[in-house]
Amino acid sequence: MISAPVPSTPADPDTAPARPARKGESTRAAIIEQALALARREGLEGLTIGALAERLDMSKSGVFAHFGSREELQLSVLKQYVARFIDLVLRPAVLHPRGLPRLRALLENWLALLAEEIEAGCILIAGASEYDDRPGPLHDALVAVVESWKGEVLRAIRQAQDEGHLDPRADAHQMVFEIYGLMLMLHQDARLLHSSDSVQRARTALARLLESARPQDLHSHARRRRARS
Amino acid sequence: MISAPVPSTPADPDTAPARPARKGESTRAAIIEQALALARREGLEGLTIGALAERLDMSKSGVFAHFGSREELQLSVLKQYVARFIDLVLRPAVLHPRGLPRLRALLENWLALLAEEIEAGCILIAGASEYDDRPGPLHDALVAVVESWKGEVLRAIRQAQDEGHLDPRADAHQMVFEIYGLMLMLHQDARLLHSSDSVQRARTALARLLESARPQDLHSHARRRRARS
Repeated sequence: MISAPVPSTPADPDTAPARPARKGESTRAAIIEQALALARREGLEGLTIGALAERLDMSKSGVFAHFGSREELQLSVLKQYVARFIDLVLRPAVLHPRGLPRLRALLENWLALLAEEIEAGCILIAGASEYDDRPGPLHDALVAVVESWKGEVLRAIRQAQDEGHLDPRADAHQMVFEIYGLMLMLHQDARLLHSSDSVQRARTALARLLESARPQDLHSHARRRRARS
Repeated sequence: MISAPVPSTPADPDTAPARPARKGESTRAAIIEQALALARREGLEGLTIGALAERLDMSKSGVFAHFGSREELQLSVLKQYVARFIDLVLRPAVLHPRGLPRLRALLENWLALLAEEIEAGCILIAGASEYDDRPGPLHDALVAVVESWKGEVLRAIRQAQDEGHLDPRADAHQMVFEIYGLMLMLHQDARLLHSSDSVQRARTALARLLESARPQDLHSHARRRRARS
């Protein structure tokens, strides 16, 4: 239901037209935008039809007309968040050449989105903590999104290995784990502790992580070159 | 109020006597234990006097007699969690020699506690996400605890640098950031995705992180030795 597909024909984000709106869809989209803002502040679990109706100055039944249930509203908000995430992080990265350039773009876009979202908070990170022990459709949707996103990062790493930009012996799953951890820490450090240097710390760590996975022969090549000079 | 002090005279956790209970304290302690279990499941914010009274089969006023307010109850639970964290993670580490042995013990104890808490969840990690944009005494207490704990990890790294076990030029703050990120990822991966390998992935990454901060001369020493053999 919610997935993070790689676009088969990468669109230029500057020129790609918006998806044409179906009838009644624009009101629904406007409601989702407000719901997303509310969910960022209160959590997906704090998102209720009542609170949203109040925020929109609409009747509860007016909101219900667009979403049959609170759960459908929550799932729609998550879906909207993921669509935006894909548009801002994955799509522009796919414009870069396969391999290290695309992987670097992917990580930098992710970092930039988190940095921009420090005030509002990331729905995926906050939601993971909110729903990790709360079974149900929201939990399942979040698991699918996080798994899917980890899969995209893994794919970009594997492509960099295939292109000879990263050591094929590097453990790609391990790299995904470490990269994701840096993003989680950036989010916690910046939001809870208001650390001013968390974005830079994450960027430094990511650069070193990629550097340590460069093919060994390139490394020793560079080392020999440095030794000669 | 809530702090994570290094014990000045490290106690042997096997023989150290429990703090003597003051009158009425044991009932309060029993209530806090149940409240902690509830907070693990519902979050600190989901911890209410009503829900706790129901769980304990007590009247609300009975619970109120021990905690003047919901906030005092929440703060007491956090304090109890931190005390246990210190007992299980920090105190036993301080028994190890200063430097890399103590740092390694600290990280391994932290990892082991998180691994043991995968089902229940870590109050500090869940709370950080719960309170990062919810101002108030709970937020402030969590900030103090997380800052204090980061300070302990930083101190252990600096001691390892002073002892010559880690490169004094390594950025200790950066190391704390990366270490904490691995713990956050272990927690998310194990709880949300039920990954079976997250503890091992975190352990692998921690070992490599420490290894990459070993003093350069030791490294080149080892490299020369390997080259000779």
